[in-house]
Amino acid sequence: MRVRNRLLNFRNKIIYQDDEWFAFSLDSVLLANFVTINLSDKKIVDFCTGNAPVPMLLSFRTSAQIYGIEIQKEVYDLGNDSVVENKMDEQIKLILGNVRECDKFIESESVDVVTCNPPYFKYKESSLINENKTKSIARHEVMVNLEEIIVNAKRILKNGGNLAMVHRPERMIEIIDLLKKYNFELKRLQLVYPKKDKEANILLIEATKNGKSGLKILPPVISHNGDGTYTDEVRVMFGDDMNVAN
Amino acid sequence: MRVRNRLLNFRNKIIYQDDEWFAFSLDSVLLANFVTINLSDKKIVDFCTGNAPVPMLLSFRTSAQIYGIEIQKEVYDLGNDSVVENKMDEQIKLILGNVRECDKFIESESVDVVTCNPPYFKYKESSLINENKTKSIARHEVMVNLEEIIVNAKRILKNGGNLAMVHRPERMIEIIDLLKKYNFELKRLQLVYPKKDKEANILLIEATKNGKSGLKILPPVISHNGDGTYTDEVRVMFGDDMNVAN
Repeated sequence: MRVRNRLLNFRNKIIYQDDEWFAFSLDSVLLANFVTINLSDKKIVDFCTGNAPVPMLLSFRTSAQIYGIEIQKEVYDLGNDSVVENKMDEQIKLILGNVRECDKFIESESVDVVTCNPPYFKYKESSLINENKTKSIARHEVMVNLEEIIVNAKRILKNGGNLAMVHRPERMIEIIDLLKKYNFELKRLQLVYPKKDKEANILLIEATKNGKSGLKILPPVISHNGDGTYTDEVRVMFGDDMNVAN
Repeated sequence: MRVRNRLLNFRNKIIYQDDEWFAFSLDSVLLANFVTINLSDKKIVDFCTGNAPVPMLLSFRTSAQIYGIEIQKEVYDLGNDSVVENKMDEQIKLILGNVRECDKFIESESVDVVTCNPPYFKYKESSLINENKTKSIARHEVMVNLEEIIVNAKRILKNGGNLAMVHRPERMIEIIDLLKKYNFELKRLQLVYPKKDKEANILLIEATKNGKSGLKILPPVISHNGDGTYTDEVRVMFGDDMNVAN
Protein backbone atom coordinates (compact mmCIF):
# COMPACT_ATOMS: atom_id res chain seq x y z
CA MET A 1 0.00 0.00 0.00
CA ARG A 2 1.04 3.53 -0.78
CA VAL A 3 2.05 5.74 2.10
CA ARG A 4 1.90 9.49 1.70
CA ASN A 5 5.12 10.32 3.36
CA ARG A 6 5.96 13.79 2.11
CA LEU A 7 3.93 16.93 2.00
CA LEU A 8 5.49 19.81 0.14
CA ASN A 9 4.36 23.32 0.84
CA PHE A 10 4.63 24.86 -2.60
CA ARG A 11 3.53 28.48 -2.85
CA ASN A 12 0.92 27.75 -0.18
CA LYS A 13 -0.37 24.68 -2.00
CA ILE A 14 0.19 21.19 -0.76
CA ILE A 15 1.64 18.65 -3.13
CA TYR A 16 1.70 15.02 -2.09
CA GLN A 17 4.69 12.92 -2.90
CA ASP A 18 5.83 9.45 -2.20
CA ASP A 19 9.50 8.72 -1.72
CA GLU A 20 8.90 5.08 -2.58
CA TRP A 21 8.10 6.10 -6.14
CA PHE A 22 9.02 9.63 -7.03
CA ALA A 23 10.17 12.83 -5.52
CA PHE A 24 8.95 16.03 -7.10
CA SER A 25 12.00 16.25 -9.33
CA LEU A 26 14.33 19.02 -10.43
CA ASP A 27 13.70 17.88 -14.02
CA SER A 28 9.98 18.60 -13.77
CA VAL A 29 10.56 21.97 -12.16
CA LEU A 30 13.05 22.94 -14.86
CA LEU A 31 10.70 21.82 -17.64
CA ALA A 32 7.71 23.70 -16.21
CA ASN A 33 9.83 26.85 -16.00
CA PHE A 34 11.45 26.44 -19.40
CA VAL A 35 8.46 25.83 -21.69
CA THR A 36 7.08 28.80 -23.60
CA ILE A 37 3.47 29.52 -22.60
CA ASN A 38 1.49 32.09 -24.55
CA LEU A 39 -1.53 33.99 -23.33
CA SER A 40 -3.53 32.58 -26.22
CA ASP A 41 -2.79 28.93 -25.32
CA LYS A 42 -6.00 26.99 -24.70
CA LYS A 43 -4.90 23.40 -24.36
CA ILE A 44 -1.70 21.88 -22.95
CA VAL A 45 -0.95 18.16 -22.70
CA ASP A 46 1.75 16.68 -20.46
CA PHE A 47 2.94 13.25 -21.57
CA CYS A 48 4.31 10.78 -19.00
CA THR A 49 2.91 13.09 -16.34
CA GLY A 50 3.78 10.89 -13.35
CA ASN A 51 2.31 12.34 -10.18
CA ALA A 52 1.48 15.49 -12.19
CA PRO A 53 4.20 17.92 -11.11
CA VAL A 54 4.38 19.62 -14.52
CA PRO A 55 0.60 20.24 -14.82
CA MET A 56 0.50 21.55 -11.25
CA LEU A 57 3.45 23.88 -11.82
CA LEU A 58 2.07 25.05 -15.17
CA SER A 59 -1.22 25.96 -13.51
CA PHE A 60 0.67 28.87 -11.90
CA ARG A 61 1.58 30.17 -15.36
CA THR A 62 -1.56 29.72 -17.44
CA SER A 63 -5.31 29.42 -17.35
CA ALA A 64 -5.28 26.94 -20.26
CA GLN A 65 -6.84 23.52 -19.83
CA ILE A 66 -4.08 21.07 -18.88
CA TYR A 67 -4.22 17.33 -19.49
CA GLY A 68 -1.74 14.87 -18.07
CA ILE A 69 -1.34 11.34 -19.43
CA GLU A 70 0.04 8.62 -17.17
CA ILE A 71 0.10 4.89 -17.76
CA GLN A 72 0.69 3.56 -14.23
CA LYS A 73 -2.44 3.31 -12.11
CA GLU A 74 -0.78 3.82 -8.73
CA VAL A 75 1.11 6.89 -9.95
CA TYR A 76 -1.98 8.26 -11.67
CA ASP A 77 -3.90 7.86 -8.39
CA LEU A 78 -1.24 9.74 -6.49
CA GLY A 79 -1.35 12.59 -9.01
CA ASN A 80 -5.13 12.71 -8.98
CA ASP A 81 -5.21 12.93 -5.19
CA SER A 82 -2.76 15.84 -5.29
CA VAL A 83 -4.70 17.65 -7.99
CA VAL A 84 -7.96 17.31 -6.07
CA GLU A 85 -6.40 18.17 -2.73
CA ASN A 86 -4.89 21.29 -4.28
CA LYS A 87 -8.24 22.25 -5.85
CA MET A 88 -6.68 22.18 -9.30
CA ASP A 89 -9.10 19.59 -10.68
CA GLU A 90 -11.05 22.12 -12.73
CA GLN A 91 -7.97 23.07 -14.70
CA ILE A 92 -6.06 19.79 -14.65
CA LYS A 93 -7.48 16.53 -15.97
CA LEU A 94 -5.40 13.41 -15.62
CA ILE A 95 -5.87 10.54 -18.04
CA LEU A 96 -4.91 6.94 -17.31
CA GLY A 97 -3.49 5.64 -20.58
CA ASN A 98 -0.55 5.19 -22.89
CA VAL A 99 0.91 8.15 -24.78
CA ARG A 100 0.92 5.86 -27.83
CA GLU A 101 -2.86 6.06 -27.79
CA CYS A 102 -3.14 9.75 -26.96
CA ASP A 103 -5.46 10.36 -29.89
CA LYS A 104 -8.09 8.24 -28.11
CA PHE A 105 -8.29 10.95 -25.46
CA ILE A 106 -7.16 14.14 -27.19
CA GLU A 107 -8.48 15.50 -30.48
CA SER A 108 -5.95 15.55 -33.35
CA GLU A 109 -4.20 18.85 -34.05
CA SER A 110 -5.99 20.60 -31.20
CA VAL A 111 -3.17 21.23 -28.73
CA ASP A 112 -0.98 24.33 -28.30
CA VAL A 113 1.79 22.81 -26.20
CA VAL A 114 2.95 19.30 -25.35
CA THR A 115 5.35 18.90 -22.45
CA CYS A 116 7.17 15.70 -21.55
CA ASN A 117 9.56 14.44 -18.91
CA PRO A 118 9.99 11.01 -20.48
CA PRO A 119 11.74 7.81 -19.45
CA TYR A 120 15.40 8.62 -20.04
CA PHE A 121 16.93 5.23 -20.57
CA LYS A 122 16.70 2.80 -23.44
CA TYR A 123 14.96 -0.42 -22.57
CA LYS A 124 16.95 -3.56 -22.06
CA GLU A 125 15.70 -6.83 -20.65
CA SER A 126 18.00 -6.28 -17.68
CA SER A 127 16.40 -2.93 -16.90
CA LEU A 128 13.62 -4.52 -14.91
CA ILE A 129 15.69 -6.86 -12.81
CA ASN A 130 17.14 -4.72 -10.07
CA GLU A 131 14.50 -2.09 -9.62
CA ASN A 132 10.92 -1.93 -8.54
CA LYS A 133 8.63 -2.14 -11.52
CA THR A 134 6.97 1.24 -11.08
CA LYS A 135 10.31 3.04 -11.11
CA SER A 136 11.54 0.97 -14.04
CA ILE A 137 8.58 1.96 -16.20
CA ALA A 138 9.06 5.63 -15.31
CA ARG A 139 12.77 5.55 -16.08
CA HIS A 140 13.14 3.11 -18.95
CA GLU A 141 11.48 3.10 -22.35
CA VAL A 142 9.32 0.09 -21.54
CA MET A 143 5.89 1.47 -22.42
CA VAL A 144 6.83 4.33 -24.74
CA ASN A 145 10.05 5.43 -26.41
CA LEU A 146 11.43 8.73 -27.66
CA GLU A 147 10.27 8.28 -31.23
CA GLU A 148 6.73 7.38 -30.13
CA ILE A 149 6.62 10.48 -27.93
CA ILE A 150 7.56 12.70 -30.85
CA VAL A 151 5.16 10.96 -33.27
CA ASN A 152 2.28 11.29 -30.83
CA ALA A 153 3.06 14.89 -29.91
CA LYS A 154 2.96 15.66 -33.61
CA ARG A 155 -0.41 13.97 -33.95
CA ILE A 156 -2.19 16.13 -31.36
CA LEU A 157 -0.30 19.42 -31.78
CA LYS A 158 -1.67 22.21 -33.92
CA ASN A 159 0.51 23.35 -36.77
CA GLY A 160 3.07 25.68 -35.16
CA GLY A 161 2.49 24.16 -31.71
CA ASN A 162 5.45 23.41 -29.47
CA LEU A 163 6.85 20.26 -27.94
CA ALA A 164 8.97 20.93 -24.83
CA MET A 165 10.97 18.13 -23.31
CA VAL A 166 13.57 17.52 -20.62
CA HIS A 167 16.10 14.76 -21.30
CA ARG A 168 19.71 13.66 -20.87
CA PRO A 169 22.45 15.38 -22.94
CA GLU A 170 23.80 11.97 -24.01
CA ARG A 171 20.68 11.57 -26.15
CA MET A 172 20.79 15.00 -27.76
CA ILE A 173 21.92 13.78 -31.19
CA GLU A 174 19.14 11.20 -31.33
CA ILE A 175 16.56 13.79 -30.25
CA ILE A 176 17.72 16.19 -32.95
CA ASP A 177 17.58 13.44 -35.59
CA LEU A 178 14.07 12.40 -34.61
CA LEU A 179 12.75 15.95 -34.45
CA LYS A 180 14.03 16.50 -37.97
CA LYS A 181 12.52 13.21 -39.15
CA TYR A 182 9.07 14.36 -38.02
CA ASN A 183 9.51 17.93 -39.23
CA PHE A 184 9.82 19.56 -35.84
CA GLU A 185 12.21 22.52 -35.81
CA LEU A 186 14.35 22.86 -32.69
CA LYS A 187 13.96 26.48 -31.59
CA ARG A 188 15.16 26.69 -27.99
CA LEU A 189 17.71 24.63 -26.16
CA GLN A 190 19.01 25.05 -22.62
CA LEU A 191 21.65 23.13 -20.74
CA VAL A 192 21.70 22.56 -17.04
CA TYR A 193 25.06 22.00 -15.37
CA PRO A 194 25.09 20.46 -11.87
CA LYS A 195 27.93 22.80 -10.92
CA LYS A 196 29.63 25.56 -12.88
CA ASP A 197 32.69 23.42 -13.61
CA LYS A 198 30.83 20.17 -14.39
CA GLU A 199 29.51 18.63 -17.59
CA ALA A 200 25.84 19.29 -18.40
CA ASN A 201 23.51 16.62 -17.02
CA ILE A 202 20.10 17.93 -18.08
CA LEU A 203 18.93 19.07 -21.52
CA LEU A 204 15.83 21.17 -22.15
CA ILE A 205 14.51 21.47 -25.70
CA GLU A 206 11.56 23.16 -27.36
CA ALA A 207 10.64 22.38 -30.96
CA THR A 208 7.92 23.71 -33.22
CA LYS A 209 5.76 21.46 -35.39
CA ASN A 210 6.56 22.43 -38.99
CA GLY A 211 8.48 25.45 -37.67
CA LYS A 212 11.02 27.66 -39.38
CA SER A 213 14.71 27.32 -38.56
CA GLY A 214 16.41 29.50 -35.96
CA LEU A 215 17.91 27.90 -32.87
CA LYS A 216 18.61 29.83 -29.69
CA ILE A 217 20.74 28.34 -26.92
CA LEU A 218 19.52 29.97 -23.72
CA PRO A 219 21.77 31.05 -20.85
CA PRO A 220 23.20 28.18 -18.79
CA VAL A 221 21.45 27.02 -15.65
CA ILE A 222 23.79 26.01 -12.83
CA SER A 223 21.70 23.87 -10.49
CA HIS A 224 23.93 23.50 -7.43
CA ASN A 225 26.38 25.55 -5.43
CA GLY A 226 29.80 24.22 -4.47
CA ASP A 227 28.39 23.02 -1.15
CA GLY A 228 25.68 20.92 -2.84
CA THR A 229 22.72 23.21 -2.07
CA TYR A 230 20.49 24.44 -4.88
CA THR A 231 21.51 27.76 -6.42
CA ASP A 232 19.23 30.75 -5.90
CA GLU A 233 18.14 30.50 -9.54
CA VAL A 234 16.79 27.00 -8.96
CA ARG A 235 15.33 27.78 -5.53
CA VAL A 236 13.22 30.47 -7.18
CA MET A 237 11.88 27.89 -9.65
CA PHE A 238 10.87 25.62 -6.79
CA GLY A 239 9.00 28.47 -5.10
CA ASP A 240 10.37 30.62 -2.31
CA ASP A 241 8.68 28.89 0.56
CA MET A 242 9.46 25.39 -0.53
CA ASN A 243 11.27 23.04 1.78
CA VAL A 244 13.95 22.13 -0.73
CA ALA A 245 15.50 18.71 -0.43
CA ASN A 246 18.72 18.32 -2.40
CA MET B 1 49.81 47.60 -48.70
CA ARG B 2 49.63 45.77 -45.40
CA VAL B 3 50.68 47.66 -42.28
CA ARG B 4 51.71 45.68 -39.23
CA ASN B 5 49.88 47.69 -36.68
CA ARG B 6 49.64 45.37 -33.69
CA LEU B 7 52.25 43.34 -31.93
CA LEU B 8 50.94 40.95 -29.31
CA ASN B 9 53.21 39.70 -26.61
CA PHE B 10 51.95 36.17 -26.12
CA ARG B 11 53.82 34.06 -23.59
CA ASN B 12 56.98 35.93 -24.59
CA LYS B 13 56.41 35.31 -28.27
CA ILE B 14 55.44 38.01 -30.68
CA ILE B 15 52.43 37.51 -32.89
CA TYR B 16 51.78 39.95 -35.68
CA GLN B 17 48.29 41.04 -36.43
CA ASP B 18 46.63 43.47 -38.70
CA ASP B 19 43.48 45.25 -37.61
CA GLU B 20 42.55 45.89 -41.21
CA TRP B 21 41.95 42.18 -41.70
CA PHE B 22 41.82 40.18 -38.49
CA ALA B 23 42.46 40.44 -34.82
CA PHE B 24 43.72 37.35 -33.04
CA SER B 25 40.22 36.24 -32.18
CA LEU B 26 38.56 34.78 -29.12
CA ASP B 27 37.21 32.01 -31.39
CA SER B 28 40.70 30.85 -32.32
CA VAL B 29 41.88 30.94 -28.72
CA LEU B 30 38.87 28.94 -27.58
CA LEU B 31 39.34 26.35 -30.34
CA ALA B 32 43.05 25.91 -29.62
CA ASN B 33 42.24 25.33 -25.95
CA PHE B 34 39.26 23.07 -26.57
CA VAL B 35 40.66 20.53 -29.02
CA THR B 36 41.88 17.20 -27.63
CA ILE B 37 45.60 16.72 -28.31
CA ASN B 38 47.19 13.37 -27.51
CA LEU B 39 50.87 12.75 -26.87
CA SER B 40 50.90 10.29 -29.76
CA ASP B 41 49.59 12.84 -32.30
CA LYS B 42 52.04 13.30 -35.16
CA LYS B 43 50.19 15.45 -37.67
CA ILE B 44 47.63 18.22 -37.19
CA VAL B 45 46.02 20.25 -39.96
CA ASP B 46 44.27 23.57 -39.43
CA PHE B 47 41.78 24.42 -42.16
CA CYS B 48 41.00 28.09 -42.93
CA THR B 49 44.00 28.99 -40.83
CA GLY B 50 43.94 32.72 -41.50
CA ASN B 51 46.99 34.38 -40.01
CA ALA B 52 47.74 31.09 -38.23
CA PRO B 53 46.59 31.76 -34.66
CA VAL B 54 45.45 28.15 -34.10
CA PRO B 55 48.73 26.55 -35.28
CA MET B 56 50.73 29.01 -33.21
CA LEU B 57 48.65 28.37 -30.09
CA LEU B 58 48.71 24.58 -30.64
CA SER B 59 52.51 24.68 -30.81
CA PHE B 60 52.43 25.35 -27.05
CA ARG B 61 50.54 22.09 -26.51
CA THR B 62 52.18 19.58 -28.85
CA SER B 63 55.34 18.72 -30.72
CA ALA B 64 53.32 17.29 -33.65
CA GLN B 65 53.84 18.70 -37.12
CA ILE B 66 51.19 21.35 -37.76
CA TYR B 67 49.96 22.40 -41.18
CA GLY B 68 47.73 25.39 -41.80
CA ILE B 69 45.79 25.85 -45.04
CA GLU B 70 44.82 29.35 -46.11
CA ILE B 71 43.44 30.46 -49.46
CA GLN B 72 44.07 34.20 -49.34
CA LYS B 73 47.59 35.22 -50.35
CA GLU B 74 47.78 38.38 -48.23
CA VAL B 75 46.54 36.56 -45.12
CA TYR B 76 48.83 33.60 -45.76
CA ASP B 77 51.77 36.04 -46.03
CA LEU B 78 50.86 37.63 -42.72
CA GLY B 79 50.68 34.22 -41.05
CA ASN B 80 53.97 33.11 -42.57
CA ASP B 81 55.75 36.23 -41.36
CA SER B 82 54.46 35.60 -37.83
CA VAL B 83 55.46 31.96 -37.88
CA VAL B 84 58.99 32.81 -39.06
CA GLU B 85 59.36 35.75 -36.70
CA ASN B 86 58.29 33.51 -33.81
CA LYS B 87 60.76 30.79 -34.89
CA MET B 88 57.90 28.32 -35.25
CA ASP B 89 58.62 27.55 -38.90
CA GLU B 90 60.12 24.14 -38.15
CA GLN B 91 56.91 22.94 -36.56
CA ILE B 92 54.34 24.94 -38.52
CA LYS B 93 54.04 24.81 -42.29
CA LEU B 94 51.51 27.05 -43.96
CA ILE B 95 50.02 26.08 -47.30
CA LEU B 96 48.49 28.52 -49.75
CA GLY B 97 45.50 26.68 -51.16
CA ASN B 98 41.83 25.77 -50.93
CA VAL B 99 40.64 23.29 -48.29
CA ARG B 100 38.63 21.67 -51.11
CA GLU B 101 41.94 20.52 -52.58
CA CYS B 102 43.62 19.56 -49.32
CA ASP B 103 44.52 16.12 -50.64
CA LYS B 104 46.90 17.81 -53.09
CA PHE B 105 49.01 18.86 -50.10
CA ILE B 106 48.22 16.33 -47.39
CA GLU B 107 48.32 12.56 -47.71
CA SER B 108 44.94 10.79 -47.39
CA GLU B 109 44.10 9.27 -44.00
CA SER B 110 47.36 10.46 -42.46
CA VAL B 111 46.19 13.12 -40.01
CA ASP B 112 45.42 12.80 -36.28
CA VAL B 113 43.52 16.03 -35.78
CA VAL B 114 41.87 18.61 -38.05
CA THR B 115 40.96 21.95 -36.53
CA CYS B 116 38.88 24.61 -38.23
CA ASN B 117 37.63 28.11 -37.50
CA PRO B 118 35.58 28.36 -40.69
CA PRO B 119 33.62 31.12 -42.37
CA TYR B 120 30.46 31.32 -40.26
CA PHE B 121 27.95 32.76 -42.66
CA LYS B 122 26.23 31.28 -45.65
CA TYR B 123 27.17 32.90 -48.91
CA LYS B 124 24.80 35.24 -50.61
CA GLU B 125 25.53 37.48 -53.57
CA SER B 126 25.00 40.47 -51.30
CA SER B 127 27.66 39.28 -48.86
CA LEU B 128 30.44 40.84 -50.87
CA ILE B 129 28.89 44.22 -51.41
CA ASN B 130 29.44 46.08 -48.18
CA GLU B 131 32.65 44.57 -46.89
CA ASN B 132 36.22 44.40 -47.99
CA LYS B 133 36.83 41.27 -50.03
CA THR B 134 39.41 39.71 -47.71
CA LYS B 135 37.07 39.89 -44.74
CA SER B 136 34.15 38.62 -46.80
CA ILE B 137 36.02 35.51 -47.84
CA ALA B 138 37.06 34.82 -44.24
CA ARG B 139 33.54 35.28 -42.91
CA HIS B 140 31.28 33.95 -45.65
CA GLU B 141 31.23 30.58 -47.34
CA VAL B 142 32.53 31.95 -50.62
CA MET B 143 35.47 29.62 -51.19
CA VAL B 144 34.49 26.68 -49.00
CA ASN B 145 31.34 25.69 -47.13
CA LEU B 146 30.58 23.61 -44.06
CA GLU B 147 29.89 20.41 -45.96
CA GLU B 148 33.12 20.73 -47.96
CA ILE B 149 35.08 21.24 -44.74
CA ILE B 150 33.65 18.05 -43.25
CA VAL B 151 34.16 16.05 -46.46
CA ASN B 152 37.77 17.15 -46.74
CA ALA B 153 38.54 16.62 -43.06
CA LYS B 154 37.26 13.07 -43.49
CA ARG B 155 39.49 12.57 -46.51
CA ILE B 156 42.75 13.35 -44.70
CA LEU B 157 41.91 12.11 -41.17
CA LYS B 158 42.97 8.70 -39.99
CA ASN B 159 40.22 6.39 -38.86
CA GLY B 160 39.38 7.50 -35.31
CA GLY B 161 40.92 10.94 -35.87
CA ASN B 162 39.14 14.05 -34.61
CA LEU B 163 37.70 17.11 -36.27
CA ALA B 164 37.43 20.08 -33.88
CA MET B 165 35.58 23.16 -34.98
CA VAL B 166 34.35 26.47 -33.63
CA HIS B 167 31.11 27.79 -35.07
CA ARG B 168 27.90 29.67 -34.32
CA PRO B 169 25.16 27.97 -32.24
CA GLU B 170 22.57 28.90 -34.89
CA ARG B 171 24.18 26.34 -37.19
CA MET B 172 24.37 23.52 -34.65
CA ILE B 173 21.58 21.45 -36.19
CA GLU B 174 23.13 21.64 -39.64
CA ILE B 175 26.55 20.70 -38.22
CA ILE B 176 25.08 17.68 -36.45
CA ASP B 177 23.27 16.57 -39.61
CA LEU B 178 26.38 16.85 -41.75
CA LEU B 179 28.61 15.07 -39.23
CA LYS B 180 26.15 12.19 -39.20
CA LYS B 181 25.97 12.17 -43.00
CA TYR B 182 29.74 11.64 -43.20
CA ASN B 183 29.88 9.20 -40.29
CA PHE B 184 31.55 11.49 -37.80
CA GLU B 185 30.38 10.93 -34.23
CA LEU B 186 29.99 14.07 -32.12
CA LYS B 187 31.87 13.35 -28.88
CA ARG B 188 32.44 16.69 -27.17
CA LEU B 189 30.46 19.88 -27.31
CA GLN B 190 31.02 23.10 -25.40
CA LEU B 191 29.03 26.29 -25.35
CA VAL B 192 30.43 29.74 -24.76
CA TYR B 193 28.13 32.36 -23.31
CA PRO B 194 29.18 36.01 -23.63
CA LYS B 195 27.84 36.66 -20.12
CA LYS B 196 26.34 34.30 -17.58
CA ASP B 197 22.79 35.47 -18.29
CA LYS B 198 23.11 35.66 -22.10
CA GLU B 199 22.39 33.19 -24.90
CA ALA B 200 25.36 31.15 -26.15
CA ASN B 201 27.19 32.82 -29.04
CA ILE B 202 30.01 30.35 -29.71
CA LEU B 203 29.84 26.59 -30.23
CA LEU B 204 32.81 24.24 -29.96
CA ILE B 205 32.51 20.71 -31.28
CA GLU B 206 34.79 17.70 -31.58
CA ALA B 207 33.78 14.70 -33.65
CA THR B 208 35.51 11.41 -34.34
CA LYS B 209 35.77 9.89 -37.82
CA ASN B 210 33.83 6.60 -37.66
CA GLY B 211 33.62 7.01 -33.86
CA LYS B 212 31.34 5.34 -31.35
CA SER B 213 28.45 7.25 -29.81
CA GLY B 214 28.76 9.01 -26.47
CA LEU B 215 28.34 12.77 -26.32
CA LYS B 216 29.68 14.87 -23.46
CA ILE B 217 28.64 18.48 -23.03
CA LEU B 218 31.53 20.18 -21.27
CA PRO B 219 31.16 22.82 -18.56
CA PRO B 220 30.01 26.22 -19.80
CA VAL B 221 32.51 28.93 -20.67
CA ILE B 222 31.46 32.45 -19.72
CA SER B 223 33.64 34.77 -21.80
CA HIS B 224 32.96 38.18 -20.29
CA ASN B 225 32.33 39.72 -16.90
CA GLY B 226 29.46 42.10 -16.28
CA ASP B 227 31.75 45.06 -16.98
CA GLY B 228 32.70 43.72 -20.43
CA THR B 229 36.22 42.55 -19.54
CA TYR B 230 37.28 38.97 -20.24
CA THR B 231 36.71 36.52 -17.39
CA ASP B 232 39.76 35.02 -15.68
CA GLU B 233 39.03 31.70 -17.39
CA VAL B 234 39.41 33.31 -20.82
CA ARG B 235 42.36 35.50 -19.81
CA VAL B 236 44.25 32.34 -18.91
CA MET B 237 43.54 30.93 -22.37
CA PHE B 238 44.98 34.06 -23.95
CA GLY B 239 48.13 33.74 -21.85
CA ASP B 240 48.82 35.61 -18.66
CA ASP B 241 51.05 38.27 -20.04
CA MET B 242 48.89 39.11 -23.00
CA ASN B 243 47.66 42.61 -23.51
CA VAL B 244 44.01 41.62 -23.87
CA ALA B 245 41.85 43.79 -26.09
CA ASN B 246 38.14 43.22 -25.54
